[in-house]
Amino acid sequence: MARKASLSGFPEWLPNERLVELHVLDTLRRTFELHGFSNVETRAVETVGQLLRKGDIDKEVYGISRLQAGESTGDDPNALALHFDLTVPFARYVVENAGHLSFPFRRYQIQKVWRGERPQDGRFREFTQADIDVVGDGTLPFKYDVELALVIAEALEALPIGDFKLRVNNRKLAEGFYLGLGLSDTAGVLRNIDKLEKIGAPRVKDLLLDEVGASSDQADAALALAQIRTEDMSFIEKVRALGVEHELLEQGLAELGEVVEMAVRRAPGRVVADLSIARGLDYYTGTVYETVLVGNEKLGSICSGGRYESLATKGNRTFPGVGLSIGVTRLVSRMLADESAVASRHVPTAVYVTLAQNDSWSDAQDVAAQLRARGISAEVAASAEKFGKQIKFADKRGIPFVWFTQEDGTHEVKDIRSGEQLVADPATWMPAAEDLTPRIAAATA
Amino acid sequence: MARKASLSGFPEWLPNERLVELHVLDTLRRTFELHGFSNVETRAVETVGQLLRKGDIDKEVYGISRLQAGESTGDDPNALALHFDLTVPFARYVVENAGHLSFPFRRYQIQKVWRGERPQDGRFREFTQADIDVVGDGTLPFKYDVELALVIAEALEALPIGDFKLRVNNRKLAEGFYLGLGLSDTAGVLRNIDKLEKIGAPRVKDLLLDEVGASSDQADAALALAQIRTEDMSFIEKVRALGVEHELLEQGLAELGEVVEMAVRRAPGRVVADLSIARGLDYYTGTVYETVLVGNEKLGSICSGGRYESLATKGNRTFPGVGLSIGVTRLVSRMLADESAVASRHVPTAVYVTLAQNDSWSDAQDVAAQLRARGISAEVAASAEKFGKQIKFADKRGIPFVWFTQEDGTHEVKDIRSGEQLVADPATWMPAAEDLTPRIAAATA
Repeated sequence: MARKASLSGFPEWLPNERLVELHVLDTLRRTFELHGFSNVETRAVETVGQLLRKGDIDKEVYGISRLQAGESTGDDPNALALHFDLTVPFARYVVENAGHLSFPFRRYQIQKVWRGERPQDGRFREFTQADIDVVGDGTLPFKYDVELALVIAEALEALPIGDFKLRVNNRKLAEGFYLGLGLSDTAGVLRNIDKLEKIGAPRVKDLLLDEVGASSDQADAALALAQIRTEDMSFIEKVRALGVEHELLEQGLAELGEVVEMAVRRAPGRVVADLSIARGLDYYTGTVYETVLVGNEKLGSICSGGRYESLATKGNRTFPGVGLSIGVTRLVSRMLADESAVASRHVPTAVYVTLAQNDSWSDAQDVAAQLRARGISAEVAASAEKFGKQIKFADKRGIPFVWFTQEDGTHEVKDIRSGEQLVADPATWMPAAEDLTPRIAAATA
Repeated sequence: MARKASLSGFPEWLPNERLVELHVLDTLRRTFELHGFSNVETRAVETVGQLLRKGDIDKEVYGISRLQAGESTGDDPNALALHFDLTVPFARYVVENAGHLSFPFRRYQIQKVWRGERPQDGRFREFTQADIDVVGDGTLPFKYDVELALVIAEALEALPIGDFKLRVNNRKLAEGFYLGLGLSDTAGVLRNIDKLEKIGAPRVKDLLLDEVGASSDQADAALALAQIRTEDMSFIEKVRALGVEHELLEQGLAELGEVVEMAVRRAPGRVVADLSIARGLDYYTGTVYETVLVGNEKLGSICSGGRYESLATKGNRTFPGVGLSIGVTRLVSRMLADESAVASRHVPTAVYVTLAQNDSWSDAQDVAAQLRARGISAEVAASAEKFGKQIKFADKRGIPFVWFTQEDGTHEVKDIRSGEQLVADPATWMPAAEDLTPRIAAATA
């Protein structure tokens, strides 16, 4: 992956790189479907009004307009713009189709999104997200917060990405703690705690003093809370040791405890209670998730999400939701950059059927059709060049087998890699399972 | 499909409708990969300069601009716009990555495209295309024109769309015929012949007289050519009977003959030589293809394409190509509208694992995990409501089986449809093959 995108921020992959991405997408789809998530796609565009509805938006939006019609983009809320995530469109979809959906509704959605941000390492202007959410009608049992952590851990575990940690926190825990401390601007505290990894504790403390009006003791306590990180239930004792009490804090401790207790049992080593996770400006109201690759923490979160008490509303009807979003492009670009996953070949073709004469093309297609009927990808040469040239054609693409039909009608198949050539019957011959389709292998470090 | 898109021209499907679309996409992907086509995706945006390069463009383009940056779209050739097809982006991709590709390069590409046209029946502003192309470096054997017709016929045959006809013509045949007639503005003749289906022969004749300067005899001969339509090689005799001679005409007859001869043998009844096919403004230089659903011709072409002598150029290097593009959204919207294909259920879930008590959730997940390990999609209830309510939950979604774990640790599985309930082992139980995943069945008329 020495190539640079010809348009900064808009990555494109070569066919063998795309095979790695397809493997990631297929694996996610399979895991989500095994867990009963239905697939949905929404249109790429929303109205500007819909996209900016939550007001305090920190995403750069691309407006669209018909060139030939001389339309211009702008502040018109009915103007169209490309979606910057899959949550806003999904919320609209749920409201529009509520009468046709069964709640709690489990959906996965894998699509491109666009953000006009300055491109940099791991940040793109066009990228693919893979989201799962469960959304309820009026209420949504907390068990789904637990389940989604486990589904995502299973999905990520099935990818050739090495070790990862799903960091979980709970807004109720943090907000209850701040309220118990006597800090009422909980959003302000969270916004500054979110900067911890970027600017460090001393500067966050200054901001808490200056912007949120915290005392030095209050700021120290808020920072002490954010230091707590455990892979088991001991985070509860550590929070209690800080001596703060509030009803909301108790709720948060119980909820986070439920996630961690089940994760210890069902996904050991994958989930950590990390009380520094704040998820910035996002409108979560309970559980929040972030995920880092172990040893690659600088890449940022590859999978984030949380619980919304109100993902969407329709009249006086409220739809709470919990979900996570995987940054597929960020993940794949990292895998390609460090070659941690590679395709066993560049093309789907397993067998290249050679031509002895130009007029045997249809017979060669008969051979190929017999192979394809058993799921073996096969191509037929377009012209009867010298066999050496036809074999080289296949070899250059990494096609493992070439097929020859002799004048007497018998068939032979040659493994290009070993040179072994054997008599074969197009109606029954099968390649080894690992040669049937391109395989994606995690490189051994 | 009584629902209307909430934004005209931007269709969205319900989960059960999306299952039909996924079935179409999966089937196309499988067929293309069995024939050795590699997948590629290109970015959604191109520069305006790139999109409008061919000048005489008849597609409405959506420009994009960053709202927060106060950018405006316009005539700047470096401004960005959404692609309106997959051919222009693929041509750019080939030029940019020529050093990394093996030619002839076989690729398939399935992505959304956008056109700012007035939405109408079968015409959308956002829709999915599925393209296959083979592109050569300098030359590309004609055999690929034959092969692509067969691959597309096989791909469409695998879809639940009923009978279709792939109409094939050849620009050399038509242009050679017009030149042989003494009409040198062959593009002008083609452009008007293309209107035949829309406005009828008498008006096309008027246009040929007025716009192309044809004599009445010349116009009649051009119209007579466009009347020829045969499913076998007899089109050649019918052309010869018109008494026109030209070298290019001979080339075209030979090429179209090669496609039809092989199609008669390998895809009987699917391909027709139709000398009225012109493909309007598109820059084809040889074979042209269009496809209609039999009995649904008014829907327009669901799959079109042809041969470009120069799909792309890089310095003095030329890349000829031949390819076809399937209008997936047009096809799927038709299937949904007339309910000619329906999903056997709305969700991927095959088994709903019930809960006897809330604290048996993890045990229930153990059951579900054993099922998933064998590819059986399974969900666990989020809370231990009354069994009747849990069964109703599953039934409402069309989940065929519910699972019960008794207090003594034995398991039973109930087929909701038949009511039959049997003892089962989570480590070995399998549903019938047709119940494993949602199936898409063509409705019997």
